[in-house]
Amino acid sequence: MKGNEALAEAALRAGCKYFFGYPITPQNEIIEYMSKELPRVGGSFVQAESEVAAINMVYGAAGTGERILSSSSSPGMALMQEGVSYIAGAELPCVLINISRGGPGLGGILPSQADYFQSTRGGGNGDYRTIVYAPANIQEAVDMTMSAFDVAEQYRIPVIILGDGAIGQMMEPVEFKEQPKRDIPQKDWNVTGTKEERPPRLINSLYIVDQDLEKHNWKLDRKHKLIEENETAHEMYKMDEADYMIAAYGTSARVAKSAIEELADEGIKVGLLRPKTLWPFPYDAFDDIPSTVKGILTVEMSVGQMIDDVKIGSNGRYPVSFFGTPGGKIPTTEEIVEKVKELMGV
Amino acid sequence: MKGNEALAEAALRAGCKYFFGYPITPQNEIIEYMSKELPRVGGSFVQAESEVAAINMVYGAAGTGERILSSSSSPGMALMQEGVSYIAGAELPCVLINISRGGPGLGGILPSQADYFQSTRGGGNGDYRTIVYAPANIQEAVDMTMSAFDVAEQYRIPVIILGDGAIGQMMEPVEFKEQPKRDIPQKDWNVTGTKEERPPRLINSLYIVDQDLEKHNWKLDRKHKLIEENETAHEMYKMDEADYMIAAYGTSARVAKSAIEELADEGIKVGLLRPKTLWPFPYDAFDDIPSTVKGILTVEMSVGQMIDDVKIGSNGRYPVSFFGTPGGKIPTTEEIVEKVKELMGV
Amino acid sequence: MKGNEALAEAALRAGCKYFFGYPITPQNEIIEYMSKELPRVGGSFVQAESEVAAINMVYGAAGTGERILSSSSSPGMALMQEGVSYIAGAELPCVLINISRGGPGLGGILPSQADYFQSTRGGGNGDYRTIVYAPANIQEAVDMTMSAFDVAEQYRIPVIILGDGAIGQMMEPVEFKEQPKRDIPQKDWNVTGTKEERPPRLINSLYIVDQDLEKHNWKLDRKHKLIEENETAHEMYKMDEADYMIAAYGTSARVAKSAIEELADEGIKVGLLRPKTLWPFPYDAFDDIPSTVKGILTVEMSVGQMIDDVKIGSNGRYPVSFFGTPGGKIPTTEEIVEKVKELMGV
Amino acid sequence: MKGNEALAEAALRAGCKYFFGYPITPQNEIIEYMSKELPRVGGSFVQAESEVAAINMVYGAAGTGERILSSSSSPGMALMQEGVSYIAGAELPCVLINISRGGPGLGGILPSQADYFQSTRGGGNGDYRTIVYAPANIQEAVDMTMSAFDVAEQYRIPVIILGDGAIGQMMEPVEFKEQPKRDIPQKDWNVTGTKEERPPRLINSLYIVDQDLEKHNWKLDRKHKLIEENETAHEMYKMDEADYMIAAYGTSARVAKSAIEELADEGIKVGLLRPKTLWPFPYDAFDDIPSTVKGILTVEMSVGQMIDDVKIGSNGRYPVSFFGTPGGKIPTTEEIVEKVKELMGV
Repeated sequence: MKGNEALAEAALRAGCKYFFGYPITPQNEIIEYMSKELPRVGGSFVQAESEVAAINMVYGAAGTGERILSSSSSPGMALMQEGVSYIAGAELPCVLINISRGGPGLGGILPSQADYFQSTRGGGNGDYRTIVYAPANIQEAVDMTMSAFDVAEQYRIPVIILGDGAIGQMMEPVEFKEQPKRDIPQKDWNVTGTKEERPPRLINSLYIVDQDLEKHNWKLDRKHKLIEENETAHEMYKMDEADYMIAAYGTSARVAKSAIEELADEGIKVGLLRPKTLWPFPYDAFDDIPSTVKGILTVEMSVGQMIDDVKIGSNGRYPVSFFGTPGGKIPTTEEIVEKVKELMGV
Repeated sequence: MKGNEALAEAALRAGCKYFFGYPITPQNEIIEYMSKELPRVGGSFVQAESEVAAINMVYGAAGTGERILSSSSSPGMALMQEGVSYIAGAELPCVLINISRGGPGLGGILPSQADYFQSTRGGGNGDYRTIVYAPANIQEAVDMTMSAFDVAEQYRIPVIILGDGAIGQMMEPVEFKEQPKRDIPQKDWNVTGTKEERPPRLINSLYIVDQDLEKHNWKLDRKHKLIEENETAHEMYKMDEADYMIAAYGTSARVAKSAIEELADEGIKVGLLRPKTLWPFPYDAFDDIPSTVKGILTVEMSVGQMIDDVKIGSNGRYPVSFFGTPGGKIPTTEEIVEKVKELMGV
Repeated sequence: MKGNEALAEAALRAGCKYFFGYPITPQNEIIEYMSKELPRVGGSFVQAESEVAAINMVYGAAGTGERILSSSSSPGMALMQEGVSYIAGAELPCVLINISRGGPGLGGILPSQADYFQSTRGGGNGDYRTIVYAPANIQEAVDMTMSAFDVAEQYRIPVIILGDGAIGQMMEPVEFKEQPKRDIPQKDWNVTGTKEERPPRLINSLYIVDQDLEKHNWKLDRKHKLIEENETAHEMYKMDEADYMIAAYGTSARVAKSAIEELADEGIKVGLLRPKTLWPFPYDAFDDIPSTVKGILTVEMSVGQMIDDVKIGSNGRYPVSFFGTPGGKIPTTEEIVEKVKELMGV
Repeated sequence: MKGNEALAEAALRAGCKYFFGYPITPQNEIIEYMSKELPRVGGSFVQAESEVAAINMVYGAAGTGERILSSSSSPGMALMQEGVSYIAGAELPCVLINISRGGPGLGGILPSQADYFQSTRGGGNGDYRTIVYAPANIQEAVDMTMSAFDVAEQYRIPVIILGDGAIGQMMEPVEFKEQPKRDIPQKDWNVTGTKEERPPRLINSLYIVDQDLEKHNWKLDRKHKLIEENETAHEMYKMDEADYMIAAYGTSARVAKSAIEELADEGIKVGLLRPKTLWPFPYDAFDDIPSTVKGILTVEMSVGQMIDDVKIGSNGRYPVSFFGTPGGKIPTTEEIVEKVKELMGV
């Protein structure tokens, strides 16, 4: 199945009923799939006037407690930042897929990982967070998407699936497996029309009194800390007795694994730390790095963004280096092998 | 002079001719001032249909090589993120003032420092940067704004003045001093109507061929590194023989200084590292921290955002703690004094 | 049933599946009703970003051959004019309800008939027409709405139900009766996804070559003449041996009837010509005016718009006078009685 | 001089200082000209986000009492209808140029007269009017544009110059002559910042109380009647002893004159009634038609719109026929000659 279609099908199987978006390459297959399938499950698909309109429709629809999806690509996501901040501020669940392309500005339509900052730090205003999943293959993209709707509801927070054009466009066999059951609290916040048996509910991100806003922000902060505790996910690959470590996610991590195989064939022991969640970032995983490791190479399809989190995780324990391809080209196994050898002096 | 009006007057004195924006509290005095004064200097003021329209007008106008300003507050800045990415991608100069308010979403209208991530990591897509000045008083806000137009032109990059409601609303005496002369290259990129004597110019952020985009992004990266080298600015305050350090910027830094005075009166030696530029962040300044320092307290009017950069700068050398007020309240001297004592165990 | 709700229910019974609109007084009950009921019938309701967005969604959705409704009030309809012209140009069916309010501009929210020109001459560009029904009571509003979807499909043309706040807000008993069967041609123009068994279809209002546009416009004109022949509808009331005639539609016609009763009680014979379709206008009905009639009084809740069509219909045969209330007030029986007496000199 | 440029230059000479618009063929030369020249006279040119944004900027700017212009073409004018209604409702002066193209919808870019209804009846809501000038050559277009700003201020009403692509694109020698002085009352309504010496002013189109709106609409109606009395303009050409009459405006009237010459050469006496103002329409001119005339042929580059006003003017005195070209083609002299002969039976 093609990545974009698998993502769309996963959303449907997770109970997504409503989609609001605006077309942009390279994720249009998601939009096309949802436009065809949502009516069949009694849901709705809306192509909005713009990404600004789309994210505000997501905001409104999310308030009903239904499962809402939007998808876009880099500059389209940029247009959604204000809306994402409102949704996070109002503590509403939704899932957003960013099949990112090269930037800045219009950039290009080829794969890129230059939206790491946008996804993990946000361009919306204020102290908000969004959970960010970074799948490295289509099966993982499917699993993460299916979980994402549960996670979004459990914590009432937007969840971003950050893919890249390679994930979106490649084809792999895929299985739609039931995801682990989660403890989702009964909804007592969604607006469904006030019935007599309950008082009205209000969805809101405005707090005029400073004490109220402060209280609200500390409440959000406690939620964020809980998510950091419970939802951080990563993969350690060939880290036992590794002499060097690569930090990479998504498509770069995939190539990094091939490079690690090739290096192993030459007797050079290199491991991989692959964050599956970019926020919360697996800082604690750095405590499990074996003492044999001499340094860390961060590989990104950008000029270096995750490297900030790698430095925070490393916290001065390892020299942190960088290799990047910021134009739409996926790094080759050879490039990574060579860079590691150069750094290791072998 | 009131902060917002001083900022506007500084922009005018720096040769700003065109303003595009949309009203939002707490920065409307800037808009009002510019709307009155720009026609007098032969310039233009446009209140656009929205912040999205405004930033795209900035984009277009910046292409002419004239000096362009926009100003807004937090959610308004969020709406501008796509446009900022385009402007940075097309390497155009402009100055943006964010008199930030509480968030996320609508939040509140009181002072806040919760747009640190938005300003320094951006919500626009791709590998772009904007220079971010963080004034701690009105005189500094004026000086930085006057320099900002030069700096923006020197590097062809958007420059953000990140103030907060306190800076915008308070009144202080202010002097409009000439800023240090900068070496601004003659413009060979602005579109002014093609004359016969030169070939047409193109302003663009689209690179369809991946090698072209990669080349463009490395070019931007070299520029960013040059800016990191030359434009990083910070203040060290009472750091000689300090036993503890506070890291703070803007209005928090102002209160931190009072706290440091009060602690000094009690014989407790605490210093301040105050970044004046948030990007580029003064990581190197951490090398100048005296060996007497036992730890760092980051103080922000947020739940903690600059703390990431403080950790990167500290690089494991100091324990990094946090004190924050995320609701519109400025921290009090007492709160900071108490927190430092608690951390120092005195 | 309240008028607005009856209109909405009628649309549903006529098979309307999709609604796109934006709230405005005094027709919000239609929007509310549709938003609740459409999901139950497997349809969709979208509150768009603006009336401009809404009418373009109508345009897109109408292309699929489904039954589409939008509703608004006067200034909202004004914003839809470009879109209506596109829909008419592309020969797509849809139904639009205008529960008109006072104008110009924001005007007021009380009943008005000042959108006669907007509805019958259009503010969209070019040689297009829309069928305009003018119900005088809720039963008629229901019948006309139910027919409107058939008529729209039969001729592939937008149909407007032009009500006023009185029709929308008053309550009357109402029956949902099956409407006369119409000969609707099998759809061979709607875009439903190209299947192998048929060539692709194109929905379009652009004709670059002048001969093509001319041909298209004459085709539209032939359609308009066919509609004029077949769909013009009016009511003649007490016209036998009348000495004077009132021309009025909608709510004004209702009051005019009361005035005619009162005049009859005094022995003054006055009849009513009530257009049920404003376009096509019942010009031919003027040939049936008995020779006893001395003159025509046009009564409108405006300063006079339908009077142009009355003059065209009269074609110099009768003096045409006017009585109007252009501010939201419904004319009283007394006012009309008095005006008629004054004109008749009795 | 090219028509579009002559129109722009005329606006400048009439004191126009501000232009708000959005590009559309075939009137872009106006926009280009204004964008270059307005800064030189201390004015401003703004390309807005859309025609909706542009007309609302016109609304705002017109409130200051300055001379404001916008220009567009047919579908762009359709998007402006709500704004025009607001401007007329608030009694503000402005000048709008419509270089009309074929419709409906996108239509084509060739000359057309299919916006007669849009211009004279309006698609905005409510009982408003706009003065509509219909120039038949470039000199007249220049004279009318120069007068239009005075007339707009004298009556505080929007004035439309309705040209067509032929007027906009052709080249003719042109003279910028001073127009007759008009008695423009001193402005006591424009908002210029409240000074102490006068009470605040309000620009508004909202009247919540029905009596207020009624009073306002009758006030507008009195103004409209005054304009009908004073500003109606037309040309009678070869009407003495004519046996037949052509009614035509703008480019069609130009061709009609050639046809009349040709018919005269054959001894067939035909005259022309050419409205120079489409609203107010020269109904009274029909009283001056000599008794020799047997019938009227209306010639329009449309399927027939002005014909409604011709019928109202004729009021049953003459048979009214029609010849039209609705696709972008200008009628030829031969076509008109032939049609007249056919109607006259010669």
